[in-house]
Amino acid sequence: MIDQAHIDALIVLAGPKGATTDANEVAPHLREWRDKFNGKTPLMLMPSDAETVSKLVRYCNDHQIAIVPQGGNTGLVGGGIPGLEGRNEVLFSTKRLRGSIAVDPDDMTITADAGYTVAELQAAAAEHDLLFPLSLASEGSCTAGGVVSTNAGGVHVVRYGTTRALTLGIEAVLPDGSIMNDLSALRKDNTGYDLTQLLVGAEGTLGIITRVSFKLAPAEKQLHSCWLAVDSPTDALKLLRSARQATGDRVSAFELMPRYGVELVLNHIPGTSDPLAAPYDWYVLTDIASSSIDPALETQVSDWLEHEIAAGTIKDGVVASTLAQREALWRLRETMSEAQKHEGGSIKHDISVPVSKVPDFLTVAGKAVMNGWPGARLTPFGHLGDGNIHFNVMQPADADKEAFLGSWEAMNALVHDIVTKFGGSISAEHGIGTLKRAEMKRLKDPAQLQAMRAIKKALDPHNIMNPGALLD
Amino acid sequence: MIDQAHIDALIVLAGPKGATTDANEVAPHLREWRDKFNGKTPLMLMPSDAETVSKLVRYCNDHQIAIVPQGGNTGLVGGGIPGLEGRNEVLFSTKRLRGSIAVDPDDMTITADAGYTVAELQAAAAEHDLLFPLSLASEGSCTAGGVVSTNAGGVHVVRYGTTRALTLGIEAVLPDGSIMNDLSALRKDNTGYDLTQLLVGAEGTLGIITRVSFKLAPAEKQLHSCWLAVDSPTDALKLLRSARQATGDRVSAFELMPRYGVELVLNHIPGTSDPLAAPYDWYVLTDIASSSIDPALETQVSDWLEHEIAAGTIKDGVVASTLAQREALWRLRETMSEAQKHEGGSIKHDISVPVSKVPDFLTVAGKAVMNGWPGARLTPFGHLGDGNIHFNVMQPADADKEAFLGSWEAMNALVHDIVTKFGGSISAEHGIGTLKRAEMKRLKDPAQLQAMRAIKKALDPHNIMNPGALLD
Repeated sequence: MIDQAHIDALIVLAGPKGATTDANEVAPHLREWRDKFNGKTPLMLMPSDAETVSKLVRYCNDHQIAIVPQGGNTGLVGGGIPGLEGRNEVLFSTKRLRGSIAVDPDDMTITADAGYTVAELQAAAAEHDLLFPLSLASEGSCTAGGVVSTNAGGVHVVRYGTTRALTLGIEAVLPDGSIMNDLSALRKDNTGYDLTQLLVGAEGTLGIITRVSFKLAPAEKQLHSCWLAVDSPTDALKLLRSARQATGDRVSAFELMPRYGVELVLNHIPGTSDPLAAPYDWYVLTDIASSSIDPALETQVSDWLEHEIAAGTIKDGVVASTLAQREALWRLRETMSEAQKHEGGSIKHDISVPVSKVPDFLTVAGKAVMNGWPGARLTPFGHLGDGNIHFNVMQPADADKEAFLGSWEAMNALVHDIVTKFGGSISAEHGIGTLKRAEMKRLKDPAQLQAMRAIKKALDPHNIMNPGALLD
Repeated sequence: MIDQAHIDALIVLAGPKGATTDANEVAPHLREWRDKFNGKTPLMLMPSDAETVSKLVRYCNDHQIAIVPQGGNTGLVGGGIPGLEGRNEVLFSTKRLRGSIAVDPDDMTITADAGYTVAELQAAAAEHDLLFPLSLASEGSCTAGGVVSTNAGGVHVVRYGTTRALTLGIEAVLPDGSIMNDLSALRKDNTGYDLTQLLVGAEGTLGIITRVSFKLAPAEKQLHSCWLAVDSPTDALKLLRSARQATGDRVSAFELMPRYGVELVLNHIPGTSDPLAAPYDWYVLTDIASSSIDPALETQVSDWLEHEIAAGTIKDGVVASTLAQREALWRLRETMSEAQKHEGGSIKHDISVPVSKVPDFLTVAGKAVMNGWPGARLTPFGHLGDGNIHFNVMQPADADKEAFLGSWEAMNALVHDIVTKFGGSISAEHGIGTLKRAEMKRLKDPAQLQAMRAIKKALDPHNIMNPGALLD
């Protein structure tokens, strides 16, 4: 239990509107979208500036009070929910860190407080004819601080990289309460360890990110969105390669979906329809984009499509010719997780393997799962361009949901062992959080685990920063 | 002094050809190209595999023997030279780590032992019609391990990023002798702290890199190299922006040079000639490249040139039409450091500021230096596209070289203070080493320095790994 005296002291330090103990106000911050984690806390802190964050963290460090930082609460691995596994933790929301957001068009950077959402970053960049490239389903809620802390991915990684690649610098409050200013807008800086990169993806275990500078890209001026039917992931991979070659590497998204996933969307998401007349086993949704109006790109895309249709790799397809058509195609992809919720339980694996190994991985892992769970429904989809597949397995149609979900750890272990054999990662973009802590411990290189623990202990000797996430 | 018994024991552990005490063999490894650092050591280790590296480092850790790792010895900041400032250190060359080099064309990656040179990485990639994008003057000598440890930059950063951005994973021997395997070829991996990124640019203070995986890019199929005369850095910056816009962001190099630097090259480097009939104050050398043959790009480049000539931004220029012409243009840029050596002493500043601030920085820093050192010859040149200028100041023509070089620290302090006011970095791409350790301590954010020291102590408690570099 956290002493009431500490709670009272923190409320005073947080200042007006900077803290709440109101259960109704806190409730939405205690559960995740997937319903897999439900937490508890006696106090939610929500300071609006870095100096107050610093004071609060210093107090917590002095009194060894554990903190769980939270951005937009769109995580999926129990990394931002306080009070799990019986821990006593204060919730530290960064949503009120909204002092300023500014684009520097000359340097093509954006610098914003941690509480701005990705959609707000995108809109601010667009005002200057620039692109904030991160794009993910939760972009209306997830925040600058959250995407940096979790190294979020999304659909544009194939072209622009993960959040890690976009992050130029951060301001963060370290576990001792000191404010670290590494908020440069520099393209090159070789003055010691890259502490920004150390905090990217650290899931709030090494500090609280209060402000971020990101790289921007030129706005995409010409965009070709193609929905293509293929026979197999192998053929999808062939298309990825030929698309990159044919277009001068201008593929900005390349998503793979199975027929079953598309059917779930068509059945459960209102207003969706199949873009093609007949069903096919697999689909690719790709964006090919240029930052200049380039008639040659249009020719390159149509030549590429013609060539691949003639070669039999593309079975059928449509190219969006209006923004509304494009949005309808992307809606089929973006609602795939939501659609699965309508048909019972689903066991998730957010994995990656080297891009070239995706087809083999899907075959091997699919067989292993179907052997162990006959009748289960495989719905693997995701970012083929990054080797990152959401290897989701839905319960058999007639099975008991809770009984099926009881297999979560066993199925994870089976799939993660296969991932490891393929040289892959058990968390490609969602992170470790509480959910995968034990699996990481089981599978990650021991020298790395030891180095991670040494760094954690060096920077957070009292283990106050998100003690349940990542490491134990 | 290092006990002879330890030296004997290390020689035995290193195995045949794995160590030398021969002064003639060691000599070339004890001085840097700029002649600013000359070291000493009783022993050079040069193991050929990671297991031997591990054994040697473990022995050194157990007996608290300091190690200085060295790649191709092309550094410029005293980061790879043992025995400086009276320290007793073993030299640890990685040049014999050459067990294998392999390209995976499907995943567009290359994985190589630390001892392969950048030129060898480039050649291996080219065999598969791929590009290893790092390109720097020392590429024939600098090694995979060296460029990762120093986060090398070069002329292609504006398009492809620094070594940090190209590095997918590493294998490294940590200070306790454990072998850390983070050598994945994955595009996405969110399983904890990014230890690869922590060791990139750590200058051998956290471990010895033994093997690296890098991202590759599609080979450049079409290349337009333009040598352009401009009035000022401000106009050069205008050109950078308009080139990126006009060509769909396909600028792969963008270098700025002053007339005086070009004259030095013309005077001292055999076989060079001025590409233009008349002299101009400043020059830009830019490469615009596409990974597909794209006739539209040729049109875009010529339209851009015509437009900027009409606008008066470009005063004169040539576009290379043969490979030989292209090489001649790049020779003018690549030999600029060497040419300066012929005219006495030169005080160097490898700095960066936000790209948009480069012209103002050059004005302010130039005035300050000329006030303090009348007659000094400003020769700032470099990577305008990254805001990274080699702000070199040559001695007055009639001055005493040693007396002028005695001003090194004073001029550095003056220039670095100005860099700091512009939000810049005192080491953009060369690193800190021994040379800039005191300046980093003076100018870097205290919270970052404290965090760096905590991490160093956690991973290297006996301070055996390159104890003179970076931190003190």
